[in-house]
Amino acid sequence: MERLSIIKVGGKVVEEKNSLDQLLNNFSEIRGNKILVHGGGRLATAIATKLGIETKMIDGRRITDSAMLEVVTMVYGGLVNKNIVATLQSKNINAVGLTGADLNMIEAVKRPVKEIDYGFVGDVVRVNTAELRVLIDSGVVPVIAPLTHDGKGNILNTNADTIASELAIELSNFFEVNLYYCFEKKGVLLNPDDDDSVIPELSYAQFKELQGTGQISEGMIPKLDNSFMAIAKGVKQVLITNPSQIMMAQGTRLFINKQCDF
Amino acid sequence: MERLSIIKVGGKVVEEKNSLDQLLNNFSEIRGNKILVHGGGRLATAIATKLGIETKMIDGRRITDSAMLEVVTMVYGGLVNKNIVATLQSKNINAVGLTGADLNMIEAVKRPVKEIDYGFVGDVVRVNTAELRVLIDSGVVPVIAPLTHDGKGNILNTNADTIASELAIELSNFFEVNLYYCFEKKGVLLNPDDDDSVIPELSYAQFKELQGTGQISEGMIPKLDNSFMAIAKGVKQVLITNPSQIMMAQGTRLFINKQCDF
Repeated sequence: MERLSIIKVGGKVVEEKNSLDQLLNNFSEIRGNKILVHGGGRLATAIATKLGIETKMIDGRRITDSAMLEVVTMVYGGLVNKNIVATLQSKNINAVGLTGADLNMIEAVKRPVKEIDYGFVGDVVRVNTAELRVLIDSGVVPVIAPLTHDGKGNILNTNADTIASELAIELSNFFEVNLYYCFEKKGVLLNPDDDDSVIPELSYAQFKELQGTGQISEGMIPKLDNSFMAIAKGVKQVLITNPSQIMMAQGTRLFINKQCDF
Repeated sequence: MERLSIIKVGGKVVEEKNSLDQLLNNFSEIRGNKILVHGGGRLATAIATKLGIETKMIDGRRITDSAMLEVVTMVYGGLVNKNIVATLQSKNINAVGLTGADLNMIEAVKRPVKEIDYGFVGDVVRVNTAELRVLIDSGVVPVIAPLTHDGKGNILNTNADTIASELAIELSNFFEVNLYYCFEKKGVLLNPDDDDSVIPELSYAQFKELQGTGQISEGMIPKLDNSFMAIAKGVKQVLITNPSQIMMAQGTRLFINKQCDF
């Protein structure tokens, strides 16, 4: 099988011009088939504030009412996505910006209301990559915004980490997929206050142990849960890293022990 | 050659939910290969106003400073485009939303400053449809927002009528292209105050005559100039019409007299 690199970037990396330029330089150097999945939450919050729309977050997840859905559709699908595409084109990378609605790529259901009503947030139910693969085979580089659709005409806001892992799992049927979760730090830190305390290799059992002691916490937990699920479902390799380290394959490499009861 | 219908919609048709639904129902009934090109100017103006950004128009053309460029990138490329795509997906049309930056489809140059500085407005210099045709051949329906790029990393705001005619001209090398310019009226009116005074067939010579008498004026002039240029450059047919009339091929059909010195 051919190799495919899926790079997920979020946080400040994607929203500040200098770090985005650096990221896209690093991204453009990756050889072979590749996909970029981006976030854009801070920029959505900034635009929402300018529009007088309040941002509500619960456990790092955005509550998406109809006004906020318009904002994320504009910011993720338009502003962030198209600027990345234009920048990649200037680096001779034939990018195409897509959401999960485009090419019917990612179908989702509006998250059922339990204790919390997340609003127009989508839980992925189906990933279709037939047309996406036609593009990849033509040398095109997809740039994917964290939006899905419900098949009934509605866009849904969907976590970018989840988009990346769901695509990685489905595309593992056709490619040897390497999934890179990129953020500001150099990897998963043993000590959150020490940027150099990167764990080079992390098993699922170790992750759960460090989650128990509180050394791994907050946003890193769903990111790692997603990642280990991706490995369990056929993704060749998951690396948690900084964009500057992709080419050296440095960061935190995740693996599953055969003995692990995952 | 296979037939390809390019439908350009703008104005209120695309920005009010009821008329958009009706339009997309009409669009979904068109058989064979098809492309939708949309505008979204009124919505961009509304969002800009909410963001405290003033809209300046000269002769119906938007002055696009950097703040307005962000707005049109969000509104055309994100909000309008992705909602159309999601709605078409709900009608079992496998749509993909694109700008001219995606797939390096439409390269433009920032319009040179003469009497007026239009800002980040693009004049089309090159149309590449190789990957677009791969998608069309796969049964995908492109939905195109009126944005281009300059090849240096910048998005540019570009008139949707121009995008439609430039695409129609380039794609006429590969398809028998029928171009439909849709708006609120039933066609080109002989008397602007009488909605039923539709001119069924209009030659270039007649157009110039009616432009001289002032019976055809304002926004219709660049639309018709674009359209006749498209016919002269190989587009099979151009129809100025209302979305509801596409299936009946009613409206104003444009043609060029062989005697015409166009």
